[in-house]
Amino acid sequence: MVDILHSVGIKTSSPSDVYKALTTRDGLAAWWTNDTQGDSKLDAIIQFRFNAGGFDMKVVELDPDKRVVWQVIAGPEEWVGTKIIWDLRKEGDYVVILFKHQGWREPVEFMHHCSTKWATFLMSLKSLVETGKGAPWPNDVKIHDRH
Amino acid sequence: MVDILHSVGIKTSSPSDVYKALTTRDGLAAWWTNDTQGDSKLDAIIQFRFNAGGFDMKVVELDPDKRVVWQVIAGPEEWVGTKIIWDLRKEGDYVVILFKHQGWREPVEFMHHCSTKWATFLMSLKSLVETGKGAPWPNDVKIHDRH
Repeated sequence: MVDILHSVGIKTSSPSDVYKALTTRDGLAAWWTNDTQGDSKLDAIIQFRFNAGGFDMKVVELDPDKRVVWQVIAGPEEWVGTKIIWDLRKEGDYVVILFKHQGWREPVEFMHHCSTKWATFLMSLKSLVETGKGAPWPNDVKIHDRH
Repeated sequence: MVDILHSVGIKTSSPSDVYKALTTRDGLAAWWTNDTQGDSKLDAIIQFRFNAGGFDMKVVELDPDKRVVWQVIAGPEEWVGTKIIWDLRKEGDYVVILFKHQGWREPVEFMHHCSTKWATFLMSLKSLVETGKGAPWPNDVKIHDRH
């Protein structure tokens, strides 16, 4: 098993601003993909779409202002069964996110791609909280061709 | 052992443009850090500096237009002994980079930080080759406070 790891520091006095961006449909749609549907309550399913494809995530842990965990229940086969873990903590004028996309079976080329994409989406989340404007799909940062 | 993985596609007909950006002092200084010194020939040492700190890399593999491998011989203790591996291949109008920072002993918080920073520097390299302008330190994308 191999994991994608990332971290960003978001300049805000309020961990709840970051938590809201991870646990409301409007928040998620403002940094990851405009085409976000579903409910972000515990045990609910959130559907993230990008053109035809995308991911269904089950919300498996919620600790307000501290931790969010999703389990991937549908999507590309490499993603199904993996977990997306968001840990938040306050540090001075920043909220630090430790991010983990855990449980890839193999370090395939698609994992390289997803790792770089996650970094750009974390920067989109940072921008959303700091400036009010993220860069969700379809206006996301392209790292290769149209992706 | 755990690895940082990334991938970007750079729009260029010439793998050698990417290879040059990885194997010349001026190329490296234009996307990673302005304060790059040393020689990028096989078995030579390249010194990358950011303020006081930085990394010394020994060039351990060079396969023109295809592969570059550095071994970290000095720097933060978590980095020493790790390898940075760049694999290039042509794919349509793009040169695809598969990047690996291999051999971290533990998935420490600093590894999360470095993973996200590497993504921003890969985007800087992409921008350098595609537009002539990268974002090397000290004008790099900050992901947390001044870093």
